Amino acid sequence: MRDADMLAIALDEARAGLAEGGVPIGAALYGPDGALLGRGHNRRVQDGDPSLHAETAAFRAAGRQRSYRGTTMATTLSPCWYCSGLVRQFGISRVVIGEARTFRGGHDWLARHGVEIVLLDDAECVALMRDFVRDHPGLWNEDIGAG
Amino acid sequence: MRDADMLAIALDEARAGLAEGGVPIGAALYGPDGALLGRGHNRRVQDGDPSLHAETAAFRAAGRQRSYRGTTMATTLSPCWYCSGLVRQFGISRVVIGEARTFRGGHDWLARHGVEIVLLDDAECVALMRDFVRDHPGLWNEDIGAG
Repeated sequence: MRDADMLAIALDEARAGLAEGGVPIGAALYGPDGALLGRGHNRRVQDGDPSLHAETAAFRAAGRQRSYRGTTMATTLSPCWYCSGLVRQFGISRVVIGEARTFRGGHDWLARHGVEIVLLDDAECVALMRDFVRDHPGLWNEDIGAG
Repeated sequence: MRDADMLAIALDEARAGLAEGGVPIGAALYGPDGALLGRGHNRRVQDGDPSLHAETAAFRAAGRQRSYRGTTMATTLSPCWYCSGLVRQFGISRVVIGEARTFRGGHDWLARHGVEIVLLDDAECVALMRDFVRDHPGLWNEDIGAG
């Protein structure tokens, strides 16, 4: 499966989150063979649950796994420290990132610790977040603990 | 509220997790005034949910918060990278840790980034984890992504 195809599923999740009135960030976790293990999007608004960022939602949807070696997390936005910590702790091998222009998380830290980082700089991911941050700055700040 | 009292609630949660057949790690999040905001324990076994470590469970139980400035997370065990990332991203100010003998997570990293760390080195927390790791090494490795 190509990186762009992995990101496309994450982007579908982000759009679904936006349509629900939520924070438009999506993610999907893939096995070493490219099989989809889990997908999800930020659910702060929808469920009142601050623990479900896009990456943690995709990780949760994948259920219990014995190992994450060889897996790839695709996400529409550079992962925050919370989600970067998830990737490092569980040994997720690769992260495919839609964009890091509107928010720069911990992906350089992950790269220093052996995680393969692919930054696609996707225009649609940028536009989605740029519009969201402009229209809902309070919600965005809450979601990244910048309150 | 004293640090030992904050840890006592986290330890109650860890014992509850053990009684349910789960990973015996508990946590509790307190506001700047010492009020309990949320408490919880690891739910990997109980819910089949790998995203709920003790700290994320307590964070989730606290619901949406505008700011975590001045809050304290009490946890029976040194927080893994996932939970350390949570603390850093959301600006939780203090972490009270039961023990770091059986597992050493990211608490030094948090201290370098301005989080106040209190390590209580509690004998009961140590015994709880030492016995669990001895009796269920596979489950423990799964919970920290060491598979």
